[in-house]
Amino acid sequence: MTAPVRVRDPFAWLAQADRDRREAGLVRAVRPRPAESGLLDLASNDYLGLVRHPRVTEAAADAARRWGGGSTGSRLVTGSTELHAELERELAEFTGAEAALVFSSGYTANLAALTALTGPAHLIVSDAQNHASLIDGCRLARARVERAPHRDPVAVAAALASRPEPEALVVTDAVFSVDGEAAPLAELARVCRAHGAALLIDDAHGMGVLGPGGSGSTAAAGLAGGPDVVTTITLSKSLAAQGGAVLGPRRVIDHLVQAARTFIFDTGLNPAAVGAALGALRLLREEPERAERAREVARLLSERLAAAGLAVSEPEAAVVSVRAPSPEAAVAWAAACRDAGLAVGCFRPPSVPDGISRLRLTARGDLTGRQIDFAVGVLAAVSSGG
Amino acid sequence: MTAPVRVRDPFAWLAQADRDRREAGLVRAVRPRPAESGLLDLASNDYLGLVRHPRVTEAAADAARRWGGGSTGSRLVTGSTELHAELERELAEFTGAEAALVFSSGYTANLAALTALTGPAHLIVSDAQNHASLIDGCRLARARVERAPHRDPVAVAAALASRPEPEALVVTDAVFSVDGEAAPLAELARVCRAHGAALLIDDAHGMGVLGPGGSGSTAAAGLAGGPDVVTTITLSKSLAAQGGAVLGPRRVIDHLVQAARTFIFDTGLNPAAVGAALGALRLLREEPERAERAREVARLLSERLAAAGLAVSEPEAAVVSVRAPSPEAAVAWAAACRDAGLAVGCFRPPSVPDGISRLRLTARGDLTGRQIDFAVGVLAAVSSGG
Repeated sequence: MTAPVRVRDPFAWLAQADRDRREAGLVRAVRPRPAESGLLDLASNDYLGLVRHPRVTEAAADAARRWGGGSTGSRLVTGSTELHAELERELAEFTGAEAALVFSSGYTANLAALTALTGPAHLIVSDAQNHASLIDGCRLARARVERAPHRDPVAVAAALASRPEPEALVVTDAVFSVDGEAAPLAELARVCRAHGAALLIDDAHGMGVLGPGGSGSTAAAGLAGGPDVVTTITLSKSLAAQGGAVLGPRRVIDHLVQAARTFIFDTGLNPAAVGAALGALRLLREEPERAERAREVARLLSERLAAAGLAVSEPEAAVVSVRAPSPEAAVAWAAACRDAGLAVGCFRPPSVPDGISRLRLTARGDLTGRQIDFAVGVLAAVSSGG
Repeated sequence: MTAPVRVRDPFAWLAQADRDRREAGLVRAVRPRPAESGLLDLASNDYLGLVRHPRVTEAAADAARRWGGGSTGSRLVTGSTELHAELERELAEFTGAEAALVFSSGYTANLAALTALTGPAHLIVSDAQNHASLIDGCRLARARVERAPHRDPVAVAAALASRPEPEALVVTDAVFSVDGEAAPLAELARVCRAHGAALLIDDAHGMGVLGPGGSGSTAAAGLAGGPDVVTTITLSKSLAAQGGAVLGPRRVIDHLVQAARTFIFDTGLNPAAVGAALGALRLLREEPERAERAREVARLLSERLAAAGLAVSEPEAAVVSVRAPSPEAAVAWAAACRDAGLAVGCFRPPSVPDGISRLRLTARGDLTGRQIDFAVGVLAAVSSGG
């Protein structure tokens, strides 16, 4: 090898990227939290407030002790335990799907569904505000992708009608993460059926909150068990664990086992997470009022914040979003909330798809009336500069 | 919407895909395993045999009880606990890297490194037999990708020398999963430095086995702490848990926090997995002979299987691969091993990059002499049709 000697730093470009971010005020920080803090948590995705429920944490601990610290391999080699099969059976039963397949994250579940269920004969129509994992799945898929305007079944129908491809798949978040808006699922399903397209629903934020007993957005829209509907969920939000799952017709799940790279080439979910998700799912099935309570907390928070003069979203699930007049105000409000003992999410460009800065509040189903009073009081004071 | 009514089944094409697979004999099955089985496990990736070590499982259980069933959010919102920070510090210290960042899987760690550390100004040079997650990372990256022949630094140098792009990144598995071959890391690093390229090493199968005290392939090649070297690892193999991590210069890790979509938009690793990985890492640091023992078991297995007439790879880590004369023979041998009480991996086209069918044996560091005798006896009998 007579290589020309170019002594250069291959990561020198990172310095400029860092300067650009600092100038734009877009530097993010990892802030490790302690196990116990005095803060009231309205920032997490623990919609049902189950993440520290003793039945959930004991189920996780028991699973680790019984099955080990990890699953030890790919789901196709040694990484499928009977506990995984149990969770898959119960998830399918609960959501009304024929079958379910568990992944190590909602992210990899979405990559799996999009890449394995489409090919060069497909058009994918994707909502403009879909989650990053759906966008990455579209990029990995071997299909043409059209971005449809946000929550717009008419535009989806037009894209499907004018496609040259024989096959099509429409993909949407069921509940959009940042401000908790719901997708028009029933209409999208009608459009899909009219145009011979499949519908892929990411129900990360609806599972456990919407539908009968929290069985999810797909059930709420009357689409559970549909032969042309596939749903992905996460196990890391209402189900208080980690992981994701694809729910749908048996033939779809069977195909994912054969073809989904993030199923075949990833290590199976660790037993403790499987156990925690099973624990949370069983709790929810025994106490379906937990889902209703999360929706009620969202309504209460929204109404009372609106009464206090804040620009609040109409909550469709367990996310309440409060508009801030500027990115700076959003950051200042979130910091002031924190100082007052309240943890809230803070979203601003470029992480918001519509350019609107906002606080994001999780209407946790286990919040008490006093905690709601406290949260409303803090937010009212903070937003009025008080 | 006046849509033309096309009543068609959008998943009808799955039936043909299924028939094609059946005819080609390529149908895979999920076989959930019980918690206890009489089988001797040489099929998992539990290289150090720690997955059921009480210190690992108790660390997982304690973490679930103390921190909850899940991490509750993105690492940038509520999903970073002090336990995550502890694991990151100890991983960096152990491997000799400046910093570390934990992901929910090795798969998402690889997607992160490839997409966030390259852009349109980059050429990526990727080994032809790299893991699926590296290939997917290349596909997601906004860079041009060249596939280099397997383990060929001369070809890598040629690709780097002739590139029009100012920037470049070379990516390789450190130990290739299927037959345990090692990449020529020191030579690749020289080539990279000569051509101003960064080197990304996926050490999923070397971490815990190679290098001083099992500190990994990067350390073994004298590259730990290098300003232009980035390593990814999994926590699901030697470290007996789930998850992945990126190890490298502080500026690289800082950039991933800002730019890696699978860090920003995925839920943080569940506390039980963080705890299990920390437990396994601390055990390995206290008992570094565990790494050496895994390499010794691999040597013993390889020598004794060769003496019994099998076509065995020269093991470079803790994977021993046994060539089979045909895909059918590989399947038959694996089934016969199973009947005799031995679980082994079975790889055949199209899952093998070189078309060679083989059994894959994990040289678990906790195997006893009697267990090695048993495994060799079974494999000798099975391969001779006895």
